[in-house]
Amino acid sequence: MIYMDHAATTALHPSAYKAMEPYLQEQYGNPSGSYTLSAQAKEAVEWARMQAARLIGARPEEIYFTSGGTEADNWALRGMLWQTAPKGRHLITSSIEHPAVGNTCRYLEQMGYEVTWLQPDTDGVIHPEQVRQAVRGDTVLVSIMMANNEVGTIEPIREIGRYLRNKNILFHTDAVQACGQIPVDVNDLMVDLLSASGHKFGGPKGTGFLYVRKELSIEPLIFGGGQERGGRSGTENVAGIVGLGEAARQAAGTLPYRMRNVQMLRNYMLHRLEREIPGLQLNGSRRRRLPCNLNISIKGADSREMIGAMDKAGICVSARSACSSGKLPGSHVLTALLVPEEYQNGTLRITLGSENTKEEVDYVIKTILEFLKKKKIIPDKYSK
Amino acid sequence: MIYMDHAATTALHPSAYKAMEPYLQEQYGNPSGSYTLSAQAKEAVEWARMQAARLIGARPEEIYFTSGGTEADNWALRGMLWQTAPKGRHLITSSIEHPAVGNTCRYLEQMGYEVTWLQPDTDGVIHPEQVRQAVRGDTVLVSIMMANNEVGTIEPIREIGRYLRNKNILFHTDAVQACGQIPVDVNDLMVDLLSASGHKFGGPKGTGFLYVRKELSIEPLIFGGGQERGGRSGTENVAGIVGLGEAARQAAGTLPYRMRNVQMLRNYMLHRLEREIPGLQLNGSRRRRLPCNLNISIKGADSREMIGAMDKAGICVSARSACSSGKLPGSHVLTALLVPEEYQNGTLRITLGSENTKEEVDYVIKTILEFLKKKKIIPDKYSK
Repeated sequence: MIYMDHAATTALHPSAYKAMEPYLQEQYGNPSGSYTLSAQAKEAVEWARMQAARLIGARPEEIYFTSGGTEADNWALRGMLWQTAPKGRHLITSSIEHPAVGNTCRYLEQMGYEVTWLQPDTDGVIHPEQVRQAVRGDTVLVSIMMANNEVGTIEPIREIGRYLRNKNILFHTDAVQACGQIPVDVNDLMVDLLSASGHKFGGPKGTGFLYVRKELSIEPLIFGGGQERGGRSGTENVAGIVGLGEAARQAAGTLPYRMRNVQMLRNYMLHRLEREIPGLQLNGSRRRRLPCNLNISIKGADSREMIGAMDKAGICVSARSACSSGKLPGSHVLTALLVPEEYQNGTLRITLGSENTKEEVDYVIKTILEFLKKKKIIPDKYSK
Repeated sequence: MIYMDHAATTALHPSAYKAMEPYLQEQYGNPSGSYTLSAQAKEAVEWARMQAARLIGARPEEIYFTSGGTEADNWALRGMLWQTAPKGRHLITSSIEHPAVGNTCRYLEQMGYEVTWLQPDTDGVIHPEQVRQAVRGDTVLVSIMMANNEVGTIEPIREIGRYLRNKNILFHTDAVQACGQIPVDVNDLMVDLLSASGHKFGGPKGTGFLYVRKELSIEPLIFGGGQERGGRSGTENVAGIVGLGEAARQAAGTLPYRMRNVQMLRNYMLHRLEREIPGLQLNGSRRRRLPCNLNISIKGADSREMIGAMDKAGICVSARSACSSGKLPGSHVLTALLVPEEYQNGTLRITLGSENTKEEVDYVIKTILEFLKKKKIIPDKYSK
């Protein structure tokens, strides 16, 4: 099997799995208990918090573990609004956010909030100038993703962050696709809230965290026994948190190496495909892009058929984001980037990981080209 | 180590761990993908849903996986209110609910809902008659726990359910302590919503589910990519869900056997302690009680010291619920049961599991008695 859908999920890092094992077996204490078994679980959670904090340049006390990126996004957007209510009910976001942000904003619209949806340029970039123009006296929160999950475009978070910090407007970034893939430093980015997901960087599914800048206090989304310093109730998913922590440690340690390797492979793949497939279109920015991400459209091809053919050849790639792949066609991201429908229908999202090899990339290219030849989308003479 | 804090959390069942292993390793697909690896993950989630449904006599399509019992409780209470808003804003609950229900109700009070807090009798029972008297024309939802997490009292859910079904009022029960410990059948109980937690019946921490009766439709608490049939977004915690499913299957299969054994041990322990400790008080009902639960108060003893002494002897027990054990003294449950403070301060909650043996029980009794003698709370002559 060749796995090239790392934006959907990643394999659990072997050392994360190893770290989790004791907490799935003999170390099963509830961290809130008063005995040694519990103290050990509590300690493991706090160790993981330190690793998660390090991955994004935060302090451990600014990290709140959640059940994933989606919960973190929901919480970030909804957890500050009681405090900001006296100031206003205007939010700013973009039209290419993950549904965890997009649909939460739609919910808030129903609740009486006004949302400005910024449109990206055709590279998928939201420009700081757009944020500046959208800000009003009653703007309380801005949420712009750090890197797009479909086309991999990296947004100018630092520039937006600097502006909003000066204006004293809360700034959240959904960094689910960025954490562990590119350097993320909350102080450098000047964000107030940042969401991350464990399973996107070698941690287990069902884990994530929200960074909340220390000066702020957030209202819970989930009420109960007061775990996570009162911020997020529910017995801690100890094994999951430990796995996230170890994955974060690994991701931080190998980041420059992985970025370079994955980007090299991605560029090789892009250049070869561009050479072999006339009229291939790269979606998203060529420059401001996650190293792992390749999103291409081939006019006349059918995404679903391509993915099926590749699956038969043992290759895992996708057409859009995982969470919307059941409901083809129509990508809100590609539509916002003004990709015509006939291109959208022939889209592949290939997201590489550090375990992918040049041989695998060659095999994937070969499989794509064979499919396109069989479908007479490219002539045979183009083959090598 | 002797673990007797099964109400706080349970060890992962070995066969649940075994079932999870592949999904923590090679079977890491995102269930929403379009390729075989994803289809396998999706299938595993649906198999687990069937097992969870069977544990409570529900249909698989009535089960929504969550990150735990706390999220399920929050969601159950808040997910129906937009539909019931035209009818009213009055809720009924009890004063001995888990904080996941209690604190969510307090939040709803802040949001403008009116909550009637029913007081239990000194056994911890909420009587159907109390519910009847509290119901008003604008009552939209009642939430009464199935079994109390501190004293183990089993509430008359069926009787309350039958009444509320006739009155067309939504009924939620927090069955976190009941599921897998006593028979639970949603149709028999006539509940509309039921919360359960995986790690209380041999499943992993960070997993749970909400049962929503098929005729109802619930608004999400967590918005996003539309997983769980649009009800609960976020990439599924596949390994966790698989573990919950297998634990549910095991729990359902061994329920009568475990109940009998655990109850026998518990009764033996209670009778011996009652004989040996003059003035020992049993908290909660003697008859309507979870088989595993023993909650006793010893006047003059100090919970914290007792737990410390037992921890030193390798025994895990608690004073209250796990989630409040950091903040002794004061239990909202014992207070509601009118247990005097001098008794509350000497409380032990011992919750047995099927792996506990008579030898372990004897050792725990011995440790308790030795502590009490050392502290001169009981005279030496009582010892055997």
